[in-house]
Amino acid sequence: MENSNGYNLAVVGATGAVGQKIVQLLEKKDLPINDLKLLSSERSAGKKIVFKNREITVEAAEPDSFEAVDIALFSAGGSISKRLAPEAVKRGTVVVDNTSAYRMDDDVPLVVPEVNEDDIKKHNGIIANPNCSTIQMVAALKPLHEAYGLSRIIVSTYQAVSGAGNSANEELKNQSKQFLNNEEMTAELLPVKGDKKHYPIAFNALPQIDVFQENGYTFEEMKMINESKKILHLPELPVSATCVRLPFFQSHAESVYVDVDKDGLSASDLQDVLRNAEGVIVEDDPANQVYPTPLSAMNKEEVFVGRIRKDMDHDNGFHLWIVSDNLIKGAAWNTIQIAERLIENKWL
Amino acid sequence: MENSNGYNLAVVGATGAVGQKIVQLLEKKDLPINDLKLLSSERSAGKKIVFKNREITVEAAEPDSFEAVDIALFSAGGSISKRLAPEAVKRGTVVVDNTSAYRMDDDVPLVVPEVNEDDIKKHNGIIANPNCSTIQMVAALKPLHEAYGLSRIIVSTYQAVSGAGNSANEELKNQSKQFLNNEEMTAELLPVKGDKKHYPIAFNALPQIDVFQENGYTFEEMKMINESKKILHLPELPVSATCVRLPFFQSHAESVYVDVDKDGLSASDLQDVLRNAEGVIVEDDPANQVYPTPLSAMNKEEVFVGRIRKDMDHDNGFHLWIVSDNLIKGAAWNTIQIAERLIENKWL
Repeated sequence: MENSNGYNLAVVGATGAVGQKIVQLLEKKDLPINDLKLLSSERSAGKKIVFKNREITVEAAEPDSFEAVDIALFSAGGSISKRLAPEAVKRGTVVVDNTSAYRMDDDVPLVVPEVNEDDIKKHNGIIANPNCSTIQMVAALKPLHEAYGLSRIIVSTYQAVSGAGNSANEELKNQSKQFLNNEEMTAELLPVKGDKKHYPIAFNALPQIDVFQENGYTFEEMKMINESKKILHLPELPVSATCVRLPFFQSHAESVYVDVDKDGLSASDLQDVLRNAEGVIVEDDPANQVYPTPLSAMNKEEVFVGRIRKDMDHDNGFHLWIVSDNLIKGAAWNTIQIAERLIENKWL
Repeated sequence: MENSNGYNLAVVGATGAVGQKIVQLLEKKDLPINDLKLLSSERSAGKKIVFKNREITVEAAEPDSFEAVDIALFSAGGSISKRLAPEAVKRGTVVVDNTSAYRMDDDVPLVVPEVNEDDIKKHNGIIANPNCSTIQMVAALKPLHEAYGLSRIIVSTYQAVSGAGNSANEELKNQSKQFLNNEEMTAELLPVKGDKKHYPIAFNALPQIDVFQENGYTFEEMKMINESKKILHLPELPVSATCVRLPFFQSHAESVYVDVDKDGLSASDLQDVLRNAEGVIVEDDPANQVYPTPLSAMNKEEVFVGRIRKDMDHDNGFHLWIVSDNLIKGAAWNTIQIAERLIENKWL
């Protein structure tokens, strides 16, 4: 369906936290776009968004919205993807899905372009974008795996509220104001909108992201564990995760322990590998207090790594501090990168 | 120097973040106090503090302040302890020191009463109170070591700003207001007052607590590593730490991975051990979203443990989420507990 002017794209969930970032990034980037369709729920339909000096009216997403659409970027929640992605595929659209709906399906590639670009070509109409906390971790660890082999990952996360959407940002703002005014904080959303209890996130830390599974791990933790193994093509790699929501708006940070397969390495060996890695920026100079933080990584496309140091007791063990914007590389930018590679490689 | 009315106590640094908590807790507790002397820097001298319906004027601490003092609780920074603790000891005072000045000295016991109370009696005039992040970790892990043996600890911390004193609380408040008013944030204190650069902590995370060492670890991380081994009497135990400052006021949280020495254990085995441990409260019911948080632990004396779960790949590996008030159990309460045990056991 490509015409001389390029491809027809659709963004599903265009008014959400990630959808907004996708539209902003598409404006900055050079994808060959013929037509851009912005889709949303009935509730947000009718809103107008300016894209490259042109006003686009947001339309309610329905099956026929995907007629003549080449690539649809879905970011409107798992249930919307479950309902509409198959309808889009039926109409010849290739879907890049930013929800967890299809990520672990055997016939759906789960892709971080710097890590496993080639998996894109195996798609059957749907390519899944991994969970934000997974993307930045595997982007930083894949180069280490290629250089030395990885035999274990233990991660503790420090995650921004925007992973739970724009309304979580509002909740953090409101609670912060309430606390600073000595008022009681009202908690109605976090840790999980649909869960039974809600706790304040302002000036607090919540060791629950997404719902708990039978095994005592949260779904967020299981996503990190299972998705990392799938993306890295290492189904037997031991991965463990503890995921924690914190009171900042954008960018996730991760304290990551890894065992590598090679003896006698130093922290500077790992730094050298990461300095040459695509999409990764090393910010690691303790003597000058250089390390990434959520604020320093905000609105940037790369994955930032600092605090790279050797474990003091285990020759094969290393610690890293990995930070990236959860809405950009963790969502919008990775989604657009997949669309770019689909187009560049003619894998539609 | 005990008389029939009890012991003469002094609090050094009585107007600071921890000193204030010490005075508040002494008011609630039943220590046999004859006289309470409140000491501070020249700058804070003259302030009046009400203690058990009696107004006490804060005095500037000097060597002669310790004449006739039985126990002095020091919490005014390492340089004050270095200067005045020996003067107090010279005058027959037993010092419980809440700074890092003497913690690693071979002839100074480093004590968490629930863990190594008996070490108190080996004192030569000074007993050291461990670092806040160390105290809560070893309080939760000692019972597991006794039951099963510990062979490895990897911890990532989530630490409150009050660990850097009252002025850090003010900085977090001011920056939060600035951010919410769309003003630029002014950073003058954190991560470390005396270090070269300062970064905003509000709506951010700083992977630096205390200054960096030659080896790339921060002094806070080295404190956790070295102090844990000393308190647990396990000099060979592999311990690794990543310490992160976060935008909340009180209570530290820790994501802790441990290897135990026994095979085939379940998470509920560990929960049972911790439910029977002194000073530890298990808050761990994922189905009902029960877990501790910095806000839920605030102003409480116990160490709270939740998210206890088995590693999915390593039979001996377990993950825990340990939370406690850094100013209470992490500082003021542990200090007072040491004084209590000194008195009860007649170890003065």
